[in-house]
Amino acid sequence: MFSTIKRILIGRPLKSSALGEQKLAKLKALAILSSDALSSVAYGTEQILLVLAVVGTVAYWYSLPIAAGVLFLLAALILSYRQIIYTYPHGGGAYVVSRENLGVTPGLIAGGSLLVDYILTVAVSVSAGADAITSAFPEFHDYNVVIASVLVIFITILNLRGVTESASVLAYPVYLFVFALVAMIAVGGYRIATGQISPDLHDPVGTAVPGITLFLLLRAFASGCSALTGVEAISNAIPNFKDPAPKNAARTLVLMGIILAVLFSGITYLAFYLGISPKADETVVSQIASTIFGRETMYYFIQATTALILVLAANTGFSAFPLLAYNLASDKYMPRMFLQRGDRLGYSNGIITLGVSSIVLIVAFSGMTEELIPLYAVGVFIPFTLSQSGMIIKWLRDKPKGWQLKLLTNAVGAVITFTVLSILFVTKFAQVWSVLIFLPIIVYIFIRINRHYQDVGSQLRLDNQTPAPHIKGNVIIVPVAGITKVVENSLTYARSIGDQVIAVYVAFDRESELEMEEKWRARYPDIRLVTLMSHYRSVTQPLTKFIDIVAAKAEEDSYAVTVLIPQFITKKSWHNILHNQSSLLLRTYLLYVKNVIVTTVPYRFKK
Amino acid sequence: MFSTIKRILIGRPLKSSALGEQKLAKLKALAILSSDALSSVAYGTEQILLVLAVVGTVAYWYSLPIAAGVLFLLAALILSYRQIIYTYPHGGGAYVVSRENLGVTPGLIAGGSLLVDYILTVAVSVSAGADAITSAFPEFHDYNVVIASVLVIFITILNLRGVTESASVLAYPVYLFVFALVAMIAVGGYRIATGQISPDLHDPVGTAVPGITLFLLLRAFASGCSALTGVEAISNAIPNFKDPAPKNAARTLVLMGIILAVLFSGITYLAFYLGISPKADETVVSQIASTIFGRETMYYFIQATTALILVLAANTGFSAFPLLAYNLASDKYMPRMFLQRGDRLGYSNGIITLGVSSIVLIVAFSGMTEELIPLYAVGVFIPFTLSQSGMIIKWLRDKPKGWQLKLLTNAVGAVITFTVLSILFVTKFAQVWSVLIFLPIIVYIFIRINRHYQDVGSQLRLDNQTPAPHIKGNVIIVPVAGITKVVENSLTYARSIGDQVIAVYVAFDRESELEMEEKWRARYPDIRLVTLMSHYRSVTQPLTKFIDIVAAKAEEDSYAVTVLIPQFITKKSWHNILHNQSSLLLRTYLLYVKNVIVTTVPYRFKK
Repeated sequence: MFSTIKRILIGRPLKSSALGEQKLAKLKALAILSSDALSSVAYGTEQILLVLAVVGTVAYWYSLPIAAGVLFLLAALILSYRQIIYTYPHGGGAYVVSRENLGVTPGLIAGGSLLVDYILTVAVSVSAGADAITSAFPEFHDYNVVIASVLVIFITILNLRGVTESASVLAYPVYLFVFALVAMIAVGGYRIATGQISPDLHDPVGTAVPGITLFLLLRAFASGCSALTGVEAISNAIPNFKDPAPKNAARTLVLMGIILAVLFSGITYLAFYLGISPKADETVVSQIASTIFGRETMYYFIQATTALILVLAANTGFSAFPLLAYNLASDKYMPRMFLQRGDRLGYSNGIITLGVSSIVLIVAFSGMTEELIPLYAVGVFIPFTLSQSGMIIKWLRDKPKGWQLKLLTNAVGAVITFTVLSILFVTKFAQVWSVLIFLPIIVYIFIRINRHYQDVGSQLRLDNQTPAPHIKGNVIIVPVAGITKVVENSLTYARSIGDQVIAVYVAFDRESELEMEEKWRARYPDIRLVTLMSHYRSVTQPLTKFIDIVAAKAEEDSYAVTVLIPQFITKKSWHNILHNQSSLLLRTYLLYVKNVIVTTVPYRFKK
Repeated sequence: MFSTIKRILIGRPLKSSALGEQKLAKLKALAILSSDALSSVAYGTEQILLVLAVVGTVAYWYSLPIAAGVLFLLAALILSYRQIIYTYPHGGGAYVVSRENLGVTPGLIAGGSLLVDYILTVAVSVSAGADAITSAFPEFHDYNVVIASVLVIFITILNLRGVTESASVLAYPVYLFVFALVAMIAVGGYRIATGQISPDLHDPVGTAVPGITLFLLLRAFASGCSALTGVEAISNAIPNFKDPAPKNAARTLVLMGIILAVLFSGITYLAFYLGISPKADETVVSQIASTIFGRETMYYFIQATTALILVLAANTGFSAFPLLAYNLASDKYMPRMFLQRGDRLGYSNGIITLGVSSIVLIVAFSGMTEELIPLYAVGVFIPFTLSQSGMIIKWLRDKPKGWQLKLLTNAVGAVITFTVLSILFVTKFAQVWSVLIFLPIIVYIFIRINRHYQDVGSQLRLDNQTPAPHIKGNVIIVPVAGITKVVENSLTYARSIGDQVIAVYVAFDRESELEMEEKWRARYPDIRLVTLMSHYRSVTQPLTKFIDIVAAKAEEDSYAVTVLIPQFITKKSWHNILHNQSSLLLRTYLLYVKNVIVTTVPYRFKK
């Protein structure tokens, strides 16, 4: 049943040798890995205007130099990540770069911060997408959390089916979104150029603004940087690209940077020229689109693709999270299960973990995604800063050809990202303080996990000094509840493997004890029977006491002690409730608490 | 943790030899076993008046002859059950009596019907009790279901602590209830006798009633019989009494019958004399009490004890259900687990089953207890009728001294109870039809369980014809994932018990296969290593295929096949998630699907 459902949802298992086929061509990779970054333009400009609006509409012209600053930062990031892609063609992004150049702890900080960030990406984007859907259909507004959760489940299943297939489904909305916004910017630009739109809607650039402060401008700049979340996704996913992977990844990154720059600057310029103010009930993009096209087909097309790409942005997390988890797991900082490829060759455990965690976040913060966005920005800029700093160290250490320029690129990037991070902490401390608590906890867990795997490795490693263990003989203990075929079966097996067989019977009263002893002598005169009295109707307690005594004696003689437990295998599963499953409890207890070898002998009922 | 909580709630385990001490003295038994029957007077009279009210207040005087009929039925039931107690001193009530005299199926019908009835007793009584509480404190009205569930949990815990202790807690409210109602009847009777209450409140007995029909009177009678639910409890619980158990039980039964008769006839007479009509928002008992005492202390005392006894009526079910389940289980019609005594010597599984089922019913029918009451009455009158009929057969067959009178007693009882049952079915079919569906299902399940236990018994029984199984030797299969101390450990053990040891390695690619083979040859030149290639990254599949081949070969040679699975025992339980628990899955699969002996060798991590 379960496996049939799984087959339908996920598809047939793929052979390991099919792995190459699942790699991504550039255009599909663009769609898969850039929806997070591109969708940010839907709110980036608005974030800047929201801060400037505190001073007044007269300050809106500042959005142009601020946007230029964001573009400069974008360029710095793209150049820097291009260098990282070529330097680290096996992927890993901020985690790998920080760990190799700055040390283990900075690497783990970057890794932990990114893991949480991917979960936030999914939760925030999907919630925002659900908001967009329910804004269009207000009758479903009460089901926001349900819709968001269903969307996450849908994306999770797509990703479990495999990377290429999910790309085919998810690529088109990204193309449509880019097409829709480019069309809007082009038509808007054309109307402005041909004078169809009045230039009096905005105050001119350079107008004096009373009350403006550097702090406010920096805050607006930091808010605008939320448009850059998602830029790092490609550098983490290089192994997913078709060969030559680094070259394809770098080109995709640049392509994405160009598109992002065009959309962001176009939207910011239109917003400024049209004199648009952020409103509580309508987004800036919606205002631009309705001014240019009116509330006609094209307007609804832009709104629909915007909503869709917000949902798909979540998919970036599904590409990046499992790979990062794989990197952390292969360095033994996360559980080994994140190393396994599933039936369709994706890292299913990472995909499922991400799906479940983001649903938990969505449910926990139902509708409060605004509170998560600053956290999300901090979560991105911590690894940004760390990886840029790591690259500085790398260039200083390795000094390859032309290292001065490369160093400059990354140094500029490091300074800017660190500045943005500082501004975020200073201006939005109330929303981001929790990072200072959960990040150390995550790093601590990573370190503990690593220590455990180290411990296990050292305990399992064979050296030639310690002599191989030696067993002189075997004592087999057979708990019996009566004289039946099952017991006869177990005894036959016990005698075939053991040098000494002891049957144990637990009696609840004197009569049954005597009766059993008599019957036993008659049937198995050659096998020793020990009867134990239980005053508290427990079988496990007297049995384990007895096993302790036998085990102590056996250890002296270098004998191994094995407890033989018969297990009824019923014909129908409902029959199981008709048999006391005490043997299962006994087995667990003996194995985990008493450290005794346990052999389970199945006895299959024929009806 | 769990065991500490259990210790606090339930108390220390008791030795089996402490069993005698848990028996009941008469007065305590009366309190424990009669609260169900006695609490019925709180609504019995009201049920009669509700039917008569259809015709008009002029018909109320019919409540007196109807009550006389109910009392006659009560007398018949008490006499009949007295005979049953002496004839069946080991208890079992309707189930035992019907099974012995009428056959297995009638016995199972009676048993199944009673089991369901006890669950209904708990659900109905506790819900009514919760209603009474929230009527007094209307601000908690929305929490009715929660309050009822908490009450059930409370009673369940008391019963898990043991019979005598729960009696001490629960006895006093019953005494107080009886005292309160007797006081009310006495004061009311005194005022009537001394002429303090006007005799004009009611139409005189014998007034002509236009529109009255026999059908209506029978229906009123059947409704009044709901006052008799719970009468059978004592005959099921005889083994709980102090010696001489049958005598004590019979006396308790008679005592209960007298109290019930006094209360029921007193309330019915007062209701008639005071001319009380049933109201939607006030019970008949409440109306009588407020007329006699006014809304003063005594009134609230009566209301409080009524509420309390309704809750305690549920306790009857907790005394009777586990014993009946025990009887059914010892006849192999119910799972064996109902035979076990818990830490405090109660039949804990029955107690817990009843608690859980009644909470499920309470939640499922939240506040709809009115719908359950007719079902409850039918559930009682089916076993009443069956046990009376059984006794008729018994007297006719055994013919002991004075059998004619005994036969007459039971024959009268059988006719009346059957009539009541028929009337219930005819007049309330819409509410009781489901009995006709679930009762056959329950009986079918009983029979299937019985058949399974018979099958198992016949399969386990040893006969001297079939030769003892013979094993010529052992093949031990050791799945290995590398060369570690754990593997070395397992191999040493395997060689000590097996005649032939095969190590199996599952490789995911060609390189690791070759590498493993080379390493193995170097370290264990004398142990055969089989490497299997897995294309779908599954370990279980290739392994089980291989085991199939080995098992087929081994069967030809009369060899036993054992699979040795090492199991890491981690130092801390959270470490478990850091190790793939695939060995657990493999073990279950081999045992249940492949029927192979599985030996688990624990390897304990020291850190």
